[in-house]
Amino acid sequence: MAGDIRPTDHTGLRVLDLDECLARLVEVPVGRFAFQLDGELTVLPVVHTLDGIDVCFRTTGDSKIQAAVDHDRVAFEVDQFDARTRTGWSVLVQGTATVVDDDEDVRRLDRVARVPWVPPHEAASTWVRVRTQSITGRALV
Amino acid sequence: MAGDIRPTDHTGLRVLDLDECLARLVEVPVGRFAFQLDGELTVLPVVHTLDGIDVCFRTTGDSKIQAAVDHDRVAFEVDQFDARTRTGWSVLVQGTATVVDDDEDVRRLDRVARVPWVPPHEAASTWVRVRTQSITGRALV
Repeated sequence: MAGDIRPTDHTGLRVLDLDECLARLVEVPVGRFAFQLDGELTVLPVVHTLDGIDVCFRTTGDSKIQAAVDHDRVAFEVDQFDARTRTGWSVLVQGTATVVDDDEDVRRLDRVARVPWVPPHEAASTWVRVRTQSITGRALV
Repeated sequence: MAGDIRPTDHTGLRVLDLDECLARLVEVPVGRFAFQLDGELTVLPVVHTLDGIDVCFRTTGDSKIQAAVDHDRVAFEVDQFDARTRTGWSVLVQGTATVVDDDEDVRRLDRVARVPWVPPHEAASTWVRVRTQSITGRALV
């Protein structure tokens, strides 16, 4: 690409800027939420929504997530890879997680959210917010 | 499917058995390695190889991974989702991670590994092994 002088990191991956990271968080519907509980690391896929620079998602009744999100350090990742061309990118959000308990906030998130993949009668109504402290992204070039 | 009486979990997701989990770890070339360093959770995609029930991958010069894998608790996740049909599955491996420093083990992994996506001259030669302690998987039905 003409004029493409964007930076690479020490492994040769192209560094994505904040706007690129946010665009990819919007574009991809499923990301992975990583949290720690009782010394165990867990990574679970969720259908997410970007709210400002925060990542929000509904929990689907997994009490492990709700137990883990009491302002603990968490991570959220989205990526896309193509095995044929060996190209791809990933975006990592690091922050703290909280259960959204403000009714107005819940109603607003319900309005702006993607349609849940798990049928509504099975989906729990609890929203989790990842308060973003850093967003980084890399792409294979 | 006739006779498909496999169990679901409390959210209605189908529980994958061990053989299904292992088959999917082999089938999908890229997974996500989650680790903790200095109180931060990080999730990074890697091209992995299944060695028995352990997940192994080359680090691409990211010293954060090497600093984190000193027998610490880690997680590794693979998944596939189809936004059109809203179907998908995920497999989670939990265990501890170590750098592979036995020369014979390294040569064997080099032989059985997938071709790295990052060109060899840029790829670090360090292998990381996730010693699997649990494997669980779920599928949207």
